[in-house]
Amino acid sequence: MSYNKAPSITAETINPRVKIFNYAPCGEILKHAERLEQEMEGNPGSLPFQEIIYCNLGNPQVLGQPPLTFFREVLSLCDNPTLLDKDEACALFSPSSIKRARRIINSILSKDTGGYTDSRGIKCLRQVVADGITARDGFPSKADDIFLTDGAGAAINLLMQILIRSHEDGILSPLPEYPLYSASIILHGGTMVPYNLTEDNGWGLEIFEVKRCLEEARSAGLTVRAMVVINPGNPTGQVLSITNQEEILEFCRKEGLVMLADEVYQENLYAENKKFHSFKKVARSLGYDEKDISIVSFHSVSMSYGECGRRGGYMEVTGFADDVKDQICKVASLTICPNIAGQILISLAMDPPKLGDESFELFDDEKEKIRSSFRKRAKTLEKAFSSMEGVSCNNLEGALYLFPRLHLPSAAIRAAESK
Amino acid sequence: MSYNKAPSITAETINPRVKIFNYAPCGEILKHAERLEQEMEGNPGSLPFQEIIYCNLGNPQVLGQPPLTFFREVLSLCDNPTLLDKDEACALFSPSSIKRARRIINSILSKDTGGYTDSRGIKCLRQVVADGITARDGFPSKADDIFLTDGAGAAINLLMQILIRSHEDGILSPLPEYPLYSASIILHGGTMVPYNLTEDNGWGLEIFEVKRCLEEARSAGLTVRAMVVINPGNPTGQVLSITNQEEILEFCRKEGLVMLADEVYQENLYAENKKFHSFKKVARSLGYDEKDISIVSFHSVSMSYGECGRRGGYMEVTGFADDVKDQICKVASLTICPNIAGQILISLAMDPPKLGDESFELFDDEKEKIRSSFRKRAKTLEKAFSSMEGVSCNNLEGALYLFPRLHLPSAAIRAAESK
Ligand SMILES: Cc1ncc(COP(=O)(O)O)c(C=O)c1O
Ligand SMILES: Cc1ncc(COP(=O)(O)O)c(C=O)c1O
Repeated sequence: MSYNKAPSITAETINPRVKIFNYAPCGEILKHAERLEQEMEGNPGSLPFQEIIYCNLGNPQVLGQPPLTFFREVLSLCDNPTLLDKDEACALFSPSSIKRARRIINSILSKDTGGYTDSRGIKCLRQVVADGITARDGFPSKADDIFLTDGAGAAINLLMQILIRSHEDGILSPLPEYPLYSASIILHGGTMVPYNLTEDNGWGLEIFEVKRCLEEARSAGLTVRAMVVINPGNPTGQVLSITNQEEILEFCRKEGLVMLADEVYQENLYAENKKFHSFKKVARSLGYDEKDISIVSFHSVSMSYGECGRRGGYMEVTGFADDVKDQICKVASLTICPNIAGQILISLAMDPPKLGDESFELFDDEKEKIRSSFRKRAKTLEKAFSSMEGVSCNNLEGALYLFPRLHLPSAAIRAAESK
Repeated sequence: MSYNKAPSITAETINPRVKIFNYAPCGEILKHAERLEQEMEGNPGSLPFQEIIYCNLGNPQVLGQPPLTFFREVLSLCDNPTLLDKDEACALFSPSSIKRARRIINSILSKDTGGYTDSRGIKCLRQVVADGITARDGFPSKADDIFLTDGAGAAINLLMQILIRSHEDGILSPLPEYPLYSASIILHGGTMVPYNLTEDNGWGLEIFEVKRCLEEARSAGLTVRAMVVINPGNPTGQVLSITNQEEILEFCRKEGLVMLADEVYQENLYAENKKFHSFKKVARSLGYDEKDISIVSFHSVSMSYGECGRRGGYMEVTGFADDVKDQICKVASLTICPNIAGQILISLAMDPPKLGDESFELFDDEKEKIRSSFRKRAKTLEKAFSSMEGVSCNNLEGALYLFPRLHLPSAAIRAAESK
């Protein structure tokens, strides 16, 4: 018997969860831009502009932000460790880059960067990241809680795979949204439980609003498993106050929610009066320990240093039993291990040159230039928006985004409604 | 009202699909080895050996295989493109590495390697891969069919997410198995439909056996969507004959199955009389075009070049409608883009130095050394196994593995059974 079927996979017959999620950063607008670009290439002068600037993702280096010399030198040396044995390398690489690269290479069993690593990442680099967190927070972090990942995005997807059992599992996640969350929740079969950020409150989180959403979801039969907080916020650019963070933690603890703390913008702060405090630090300051609350913190080299294409990040997983961490490790091992260049880069980000190190001055100078350029651009945009008629906008405190409100004339709204 | 729940995620309450899959390469034996290693560190001399050699994964560079100089030089330069402007670079990098790195950097819009790329990978590098496939097969390959990925593992997982709708969807996959497949199929909610390879037939594929498994699965109510073939085989080390490949393709075409061709060992061939032929090439030679059969071919720099930790690979997706490819792209975009170092490396693997290029001689020499060392080791192991009492083993034709059979004495089997 022959079935004689034509190729059986059509857009109608793929996994329906794939079909239903939207992911705007690669959606219609991007496609349209690509079509225009092709047109520009094939038929120069046919369009009234010469260049398309892609702003569909925060992608600073593509828009001219220079990389940090120290990062790139160390990476370059680690990619080709034979350079470390050559005198000529001193003409091209700073002594501290050479020193750091040597330390990294020596910490790898095979003294090279080509092998698969532990699926959580190289143990010594995880230790460097843990030490960096300890120094940042003043509370201890353990290498065993660190999973190095191919960027924060990969880590977020992995966690969703662990948490979501069916569409009856809900994940609280903020609106306005960073669309990776809704997409990942839907793809992995769960239900997003959106909560609104409050524009009038500087895009802060009102606990009564989150609680209302939680209770509504529960009445609808959902088991809400986790709450996502992005701080500093994407796309809303706020930096939460410690008091607000404390309320959120207390809420998660009481309600038995895993706190998913997206902290990828922790280095991108602009407001004079705001500082970054990790949720774990605030939790420990409140006296909450691992038994009280499960917190996963995501970070990466993408937003803080613009090294987006490198795919280097980590998640710190606290308040989970060892057997759950084993399961996380098992899922991570399905992609075998995170890429080594990314692993190295996130270790550098968490242990950058310090005051007194030879390379500190250049590093700090380059970093400060990037910062002040961001600050300047943020101010320029803020001013531009606030001077526009019918537009209002909160100040930019952190991250890379302003989220203006358009006040449409009521006549325009009525006219639209009548259509 | 306060729920006052303790952290709610336990090994019992995570996604049950995570719990049930096994993935031996990171299972109990690995953990035991890590425990022993810790013991050795903490208490030197306490164990009757000084070193643990990890063979849980094919991971050649960790076991001493050197990387290819050309690959590492180009990577090193691309990581730090400012090197390209420095005269001193000539003392450390070969002219052809510099030339290649310059070509790659110039093909990137931002002239640097730090930005997010297209979620399918940089267009020019996809074109390089497509050209490499065209040259290899003698049949055209298109950049639009190429998805660069963080290794083949990531690509396989992605495809499973696309194909599997529920546990009523089955994927035909070989036994003895490479465990990533069963793990990925289970994690993504599908059902593995195993078929046996035939040891007596040099671990070839008997179509009547596959057909039997397919029909059994269909009678059990499964919709079988795809068939996985690993060629050269892991863990069985066979290289399929063209006739066998033709039968398989005809079968997939007739039965409307997507052919998932795991071709990551395409460079690892040892038998004099065997050559690698991609399934796509064999299909096109048979006259099957995109309308007749959907084929996905997976390849990466891990097994062919030992650059496992770099996470660089591609999949070539043919016989799918554009709207399906759009959906694949959408899922790929959830991890934003594959890492750039891996993208560069797979482009080098598919466009290595050619006869006449300055760097060809060294490249070829290094590659041949690795090959002959593999060949030698394969022969040594084959001989060792065939001289052992109660052990038989097929010859190694390709990939990195021998799969011996232990013939236990019937008395031993009876004794075990009685316990
Ligand atoms: C809030 C937030 N989380 C995660 C990510 C993903 O970053 P990565 O490149 O580390 O995957 C982004 C990137 O834009 C982001 O804005
Ligand atoms: C048959 C097979 N497929 C895929 C892979 C995954 O390789 P990658 O490192 O490209 O993810 C391996 C690795 O051992 C393999 O043996």
